[in-house]
Amino acid sequence: MKLIRFGEEGKEKPGILLNDKRYDVSSIVTTDYNEAFFENDGLKKLEEALKSNPSLPEVSDSVRLGSPVARPSKIICIGLNYVDHCEETGAAIPAEPIIFFKSTTSLCGPNDNLIIPKNSEKTDWEVELAFVVGKKASYVSEEDAPNYIAGYCLLNDYSERAFQIERGGQWAKGKGSDTFAPLGPTMVTPDEAGDVNNLKMWLTVNGKTFQNSNTSNLIFKIPFLVHYLSQFMTLLPGDVISTGTPPGVGLGIKPDPIYIKAGDVIELGIEGLGTSKQTAVAYS
Amino acid sequence: MKLIRFGEEGKEKPGILLNDKRYDVSSIVTTDYNEAFFENDGLKKLEEALKSNPSLPEVSDSVRLGSPVARPSKIICIGLNYVDHCEETGAAIPAEPIIFFKSTTSLCGPNDNLIIPKNSEKTDWEVELAFVVGKKASYVSEEDAPNYIAGYCLLNDYSERAFQIERGGQWAKGKGSDTFAPLGPTMVTPDEAGDVNNLKMWLTVNGKTFQNSNTSNLIFKIPFLVHYLSQFMTLLPGDVISTGTPPGVGLGIKPDPIYIKAGDVIELGIEGLGTSKQTAVAYS
Repeated sequence: MKLIRFGEEGKEKPGILLNDKRYDVSSIVTTDYNEAFFENDGLKKLEEALKSNPSLPEVSDSVRLGSPVARPSKIICIGLNYVDHCEETGAAIPAEPIIFFKSTTSLCGPNDNLIIPKNSEKTDWEVELAFVVGKKASYVSEEDAPNYIAGYCLLNDYSERAFQIERGGQWAKGKGSDTFAPLGPTMVTPDEAGDVNNLKMWLTVNGKTFQNSNTSNLIFKIPFLVHYLSQFMTLLPGDVISTGTPPGVGLGIKPDPIYIKAGDVIELGIEGLGTSKQTAVAYS
Repeated sequence: MKLIRFGEEGKEKPGILLNDKRYDVSSIVTTDYNEAFFENDGLKKLEEALKSNPSLPEVSDSVRLGSPVARPSKIICIGLNYVDHCEETGAAIPAEPIIFFKSTTSLCGPNDNLIIPKNSEKTDWEVELAFVVGKKASYVSEEDAPNYIAGYCLLNDYSERAFQIERGGQWAKGKGSDTFAPLGPTMVTPDEAGDVNNLKMWLTVNGKTFQNSNTSNLIFKIPFLVHYLSQFMTLLPGDVISTGTPPGVGLGIKPDPIYIKAGDVIELGIEGLGTSKQTAVAYS
C-alpha cells in the first residue's frame, strides 16, 4: 500500500495512492495515520478492508498532500551515513551512528512551501530515505528489526547551517524550523518498496542536479538502525527515522557553499517512493 | 493552581493539589492536561470552575502520581546554564544557550523507579527547573514571553554519560532512555510559583547531598529562553522546557565520578514546586 494524507493543513484525511490515483479511505480509517493506528494493526486492517474492493471516493490531484503520517512522537535523523558523503568531505566513517532529533513541528506536506526562517542565510537541503516505525520498539535485535517497520518515505531534511553549527552546542537548533521536514508524497509499505538498499535518489535546485546517489551507499542499514536506536530510547508506532543524506548538500559545494534563496525550487525523489517539490519563500 | 495527574501509568487522570490534598478534577477536565487543554484556555476554565467550590473526590496519597502534564510534542533542555556549574567545571559561560532534546518517551511520574538502561555504567542525575509552554510560540519577544508560560515543574534530567559523550556525535543518545525524565510532582501556575529566579534546589543520593544551589544562578533566564528557542522552532502548548542543572552531578565529582547503582535512592526538590524520589533498578 501507499498511504497518503490529503486536505488542508491540520485537517488532513487518510487516503491511499493506487495505480497513481488518490482515494479517500476515511470511511475505513476513522482516526488518522497516527500512533494508535499503527499500534492497533491499522495497516493490516486497512489492507483487509481494501480486499473487498469497497467503493472509495477519488481525490483530485489538485488537493494538497500533507505528510503521509500524522505528527509522530519523534523524528530521529542519522548523520554522516553515506560512504560517498564521507569520501567527499574527507570525514572518517563513523564507528557508530550519529543521531539527532528534528522538532516534530517541522513536519509538513511534500509540496508545501519551504519557509526560510527569519535571520537565516544558510538554509540547505538534504534528500533522505526515511522509515516509519510500525510497533513499539525497545531493545530490538537486528534480525527482528524488519517486523518493526511500517513503511518508507522520501524526506527533505532541511537544515540551517549557521543555526546548526555556528550558534553553539548541539545540532538541534538548525534542524527544527517550521516546514523543515517535508515528508512524502506517500508512505510505501515494505512489500511495495522494493530493495530499500538499492534505490536511486536525487535532488535538484532550480533544475540543476546537486544530489545523485543510491541507498546502496548507506553505511548503517535500516535493520541495524532500528536495533541501535532502540538501545537508547523506545521507538513508538508512527515515529519517523531518517537515515542520512548523500553528498551534494549546499554546505559542501566548493569553492563556495550555495544556500537557498526565496524563489528557489527544490525537487527531489527516491526510486519507488515518489517525488516532492518545495518552493522557498521568505518568512513573513 | 497546582496540577497533578494520578493513577496507573498510561491511564492517568487530571487532578489538583490544594492545601496539600489531592483532588480528582476529571469531572471538569474531560480530556487530559495535553496540547489541546492548554491551547483551549483549559487552565483558565479550570480555575473558573473551581471558584464555585465544586465537590471533588479526594485522591489518596497512596495513589501513584504520573507526570503532571501529558506527553508533550517535545522536551527541550538547556545545557550549561548555571554560573556555579560553569565555575566548577572551568567552562566558559556560553555566549548563547546550548539546546538538546530528550525523547518524550523518557517522561514518567515523579516517584517512579529509575530504570538503569541495559549496558549502562554511567547513569547520572540532574535536578532542574522546568517550565510548561502555555500557548503556541513562534518568534516571541522576551517581553511577551511570560504570556507563554503555563507553569513550572521539578525535573530530574537523568543522563547516561557514556551514551551521551563517548558514543559519537550528539547528546541525544544519553538523554532519552525510558524513565529518564521524572517530572513533577506538580505543575505550579506562575501566580503560585513565587520568584522563579530565586528558588532553592537540591538533590541527594542515599541521603547525601550532591546538588545544592538556587535558580538565581541561572545564566539564561526563562523569558529569554522562550524568546530564544522560538527563533529556531515553534513551541507548542504543553511542551516542556528544562533550564539546566547546577553543579554536583556525578560526572563532575573529583577525583572519581560517581554513578547510580541499582538500589540507590535519589531525592530532589525545588522550593515551592515540591519534591520527588526515584529508586534505581536494573533493567530486566
